[in-house]
Amino acid sequence: MGELSAATGVPVPTIKYYLRENLLPAGDRTGPNQASYDAAHVRRLRLIRALLDVGGLSVTTARQVITAVDTPDLPLSWIFGVAQHAVSDTTLYEPLDGDGPGVALVDEAIDRMGWHVHDDNPGRRGAARVLNTYAALGADDLAEISDGYARAAELIARADLAAVAQGGSVSDMSETVVIGTVLGDALVASLRRIAQEHVSFELFPDAVAPVKSQKGRSS
Amino acid sequence: MGELSAATGVPVPTIKYYLRENLLPAGDRTGPNQASYDAAHVRRLRLIRALLDVGGLSVTTARQVITAVDTPDLPLSWIFGVAQHAVSDTTLYEPLDGDGPGVALVDEAIDRMGWHVHDDNPGRRGAARVLNTYAALGADDLAEISDGYARAAELIARADLAAVAQGGSVSDMSETVVIGTVLGDALVASLRRIAQEHVSFELFPDAVAPVKSQKGRSS
Repeated sequence: MGELSAATGVPVPTIKYYLRENLLPAGDRTGPNQASYDAAHVRRLRLIRALLDVGGLSVTTARQVITAVDTPDLPLSWIFGVAQHAVSDTTLYEPLDGDGPGVALVDEAIDRMGWHVHDDNPGRRGAARVLNTYAALGADDLAEISDGYARAAELIARADLAAVAQGGSVSDMSETVVIGTVLGDALVASLRRIAQEHVSFELFPDAVAPVKSQKGRSS
Repeated sequence: MGELSAATGVPVPTIKYYLRENLLPAGDRTGPNQASYDAAHVRRLRLIRALLDVGGLSVTTARQVITAVDTPDLPLSWIFGVAQHAVSDTTLYEPLDGDGPGVALVDEAIDRMGWHVHDDNPGRRGAARVLNTYAALGADDLAEISDGYARAAELIARADLAAVAQGGSVSDMSETVVIGTVLGDALVASLRRIAQEHVSFELFPDAVAPVKSQKGRSS
């Protein structure tokens, strides 16, 4: 276990916690206080850290995702659905309370785009909640789903699924599907911040820069 | 205060907390235990709830954003910068530790798109962190920023800034800028879930649906 910790940078008590929580499979017992761990454990430990730390999943949700990855012969579309629901396990996607134009505006946008989407897709609730909030705040300029947002979402989804569509065996691809689904939100949000600065500079070239310009990578 | 609570659905103890935290300005004193609140208080209370509950900001970060909104004569680009940094106040955007190809891949994508972006844009760190994680997991299919993601980010940023570019006085627009920046991540993530289901269905029409098809809106 000490070597597993050294190889991954994950402290031993944390590894023990993941074992207790059934996130990480037990090693092969080689003695009373010894177990052997292999490359699969290293890989799994990195996946757990990515889901929890970068993806922000809870331990319970991460376990559901990992169980799906480990279940033989699950179709990729199923694993994708599990990952999508896992990453939607926040208050944003809970059933809506109160009234507002959100649900109708989301339906409109889906019709406009010609999308086929189940009524229980969590994104419907999240988008409707945001639009209800805009409406309650009187933010009329934001009161609908712009074509730019809708087309961007479809571009992202096509990029998300391009790797899956390339084929490959389910066991090879299921981890990729899970990782891409869970971490994709963070990547999109990050790229939005980068592109916003560029577009802001393009539209307002003379504006005072809101951030300091510094040399040296921010790494 | 009871009427303010009734008009907004925010419990009185929560309103008192926002007053103590200087998120909500005090009402006009009309008696020893009485203060009068007006439409501006109702509006401000809704903004606070949107920033905290839908946008997921901390109280401290929400106060920074509201202070910027309340400061006279701040240019919109400045308010936009404050909102962008506020919404990037999570571990995802912290300085990177460890090595990885992320920083170089982000630089490459920015060059490819012809974007002008400061070195300290928080999105650089977030995107690099996700790409470092992909690389550590051996997810080769995800190992770069696809053109789809980059073009989608620019579409989103243009939609984000369209309202700002239309003009209007700073005092009218600053709230819109803040709301759109903070809640836009949630809207984009929601639309991604919707579009993913559609594209998944288009690419794998015969696959078993991962979610139950149900009639009735999920509201």
